[in-house]
Amino acid sequence: MTGGERQRVGVVGATGLVGTEILRVLEDRGFPVAELRAFASPRSAGRVLPFAGGEVEVHALGEGCFDGLDLVMVDVDDPLALEWAPAAAAVGASVVDNSAAFRMDPDVPLVVAGINSDALDHMPKGIASCPNCTTAVLVAALAPLHRAARIRRLVVSTYQSVSGAGQPGLRELDDQWTKHAGSTGALLRAGDGGDLPSGEVWDRPIAGNVIPVAGSVGDAGFTSEEWKMARETRKILGDDDIAVTATCVRVPVFVSHAMTANVEFHRPVDPREAAELLASAEGVTLVADGAAAPTPLESAGVDPVLVGRLREDPSLPGALNLWATGDNLRIGAALNAVRIAEHLSRMPHS
Amino acid sequence: MTGGERQRVGVVGATGLVGTEILRVLEDRGFPVAELRAFASPRSAGRVLPFAGGEVEVHALGEGCFDGLDLVMVDVDDPLALEWAPAAAAVGASVVDNSAAFRMDPDVPLVVAGINSDALDHMPKGIASCPNCTTAVLVAALAPLHRAARIRRLVVSTYQSVSGAGQPGLRELDDQWTKHAGSTGALLRAGDGGDLPSGEVWDRPIAGNVIPVAGSVGDAGFTSEEWKMARETRKILGDDDIAVTATCVRVPVFVSHAMTANVEFHRPVDPREAAELLASAEGVTLVADGAAAPTPLESAGVDPVLVGRLREDPSLPGALNLWATGDNLRIGAALNAVRIAEHLSRMPHS
Repeated sequence: MTGGERQRVGVVGATGLVGTEILRVLEDRGFPVAELRAFASPRSAGRVLPFAGGEVEVHALGEGCFDGLDLVMVDVDDPLALEWAPAAAAVGASVVDNSAAFRMDPDVPLVVAGINSDALDHMPKGIASCPNCTTAVLVAALAPLHRAARIRRLVVSTYQSVSGAGQPGLRELDDQWTKHAGSTGALLRAGDGGDLPSGEVWDRPIAGNVIPVAGSVGDAGFTSEEWKMARETRKILGDDDIAVTATCVRVPVFVSHAMTANVEFHRPVDPREAAELLASAEGVTLVADGAAAPTPLESAGVDPVLVGRLREDPSLPGALNLWATGDNLRIGAALNAVRIAEHLSRMPHS
Repeated sequence: MTGGERQRVGVVGATGLVGTEILRVLEDRGFPVAELRAFASPRSAGRVLPFAGGEVEVHALGEGCFDGLDLVMVDVDDPLALEWAPAAAAVGASVVDNSAAFRMDPDVPLVVAGINSDALDHMPKGIASCPNCTTAVLVAALAPLHRAARIRRLVVSTYQSVSGAGQPGLRELDDQWTKHAGSTGALLRAGDGGDLPSGEVWDRPIAGNVIPVAGSVGDAGFTSEEWKMARETRKILGDDDIAVTATCVRVPVFVSHAMTANVEFHRPVDPREAAELLASAEGVTLVADGAAAPTPLESAGVDPVLVGRLREDPSLPGALNLWATGDNLRIGAALNAVRIAEHLSRMPHS
């Protein structure tokens, strides 16, 4: 296949939050689609999704479902991805997977498009992997700095939106929001001496609250999200020596993740140099005026990761503080996946 | 005056969010009040506030208004505090000030009750100062660790509630919340290509958003809140060498501030030792199970600072990560002020 040729595309998990966004991004970017096949769970089979002025019907996954496809984009749970991504690769499709199932596989490139797309040259399993949504935002902001001065250590605290937990996360915030409208006083001091009501996604209210646990708590008390941020950042930036310590926190925001990062380098970097590096980097927009530092609402729906609050660290000469925010459904998932697909479509077949 | 004697108490700024809380805490803790005089701006004069089963009328500040008072608690803007706190001290009252006006004055103790109450022994101006609400929460969590192993450096990111901006902050979140209820979809991608609507307290929406600027941006790009956290932490812990780097962020929570802290010590501290130190400390409750880490809603309205997510830092041996949350109106302001007043009331007159 050569650049520009129209492709037969499959989207697995097409009815999910990210799957829906993949369809939108394919359409918005004019990806050359010859055929689109949408897959989801059996209970969604038969649903019809809008695409490119027409409609596509949703099918259940099954024997032979990928036959004839050039590209398959996957956004489902790890166990399903482990089963179906290799099945798609087996019929010769290029696979772009958004799950965590293959990210740390040495034979699967883990890519943020525009940052380390060259890793796509080595794809022995026919599968490319997209990082965790929080990691993608972080890496887009940090890569230009890492290339110039090599990062030694990162201390990261996140402000992650509920859409990171998919449709159920959005619904839970929306439901709690609506329920308390007009009586937010109940949230002023809800902790007063009693247990808080439990949601389905989170065990405590997320509306009017923040929950300092994103993912499941595992090794050494860190959550799955926190370990992903450490491991995936090292793999994408290609430097196993980067030390990372992270605390991942859920906030009552619908879309877009944000984070603070305290960054130590192998040589001093001052805010002026960092600003120049970020200003000339792809996929990042620096908001230089501190008070105008970008919020998640501003990064939602736009392509670049927005960076602000660049400050020299008074506690450690040569280190920097910064703030970054990016759309977890786009740069954190669908946009990155489609950009990887665009890159693959321009590569000569091996 | 000796312990237990009933006191004539003035509260300046009695109609504000913290002032109201001071009245509540005085009542709840059975502070020995012989007389209560409530002061506020002239436009609030004549209002009647409930107190201890009765009512107190609000008066405007003016010549002689403090005559005969033993204790005056002040929660107003810095310029007003600069004018009226010394006036209260001049008539012989002990003054407990919540503003930032006197915090860094070497002749004014800056106190978190139970942490460094002994600093109240030296009060040459008759004024004691309460720290910034975020700092008070942080210091309550860190003091037991600092005493044992001396803190070298702190990297802090905050999750601060809107009540830190007083009644207008609460109102702004409540108004935006109500406005968007039932149509939170508008907040999903509000950033899409347009300017966001501006509030009165914050220049962008705070409902469904986080704003990475708390306070005004000043020296070296740090905000007033961030500088306060550094300077006040050093003064309260009595160690000018503690290096602090902070990013202060506003979140759509009504009451209670929260924060992550990455803590380096002069000697290694592991989570087990830290847990023991915190378990035996006053004013702190450790939630040892990571997944149950305390949220702001749980700390709102309760006395102790809640600490969770104690983890060894994999990026720096001997360092710790933790999460802390406390009620900014209580431990961060009113409760601390009343506890300082209780301490002063037990001290022999000099």
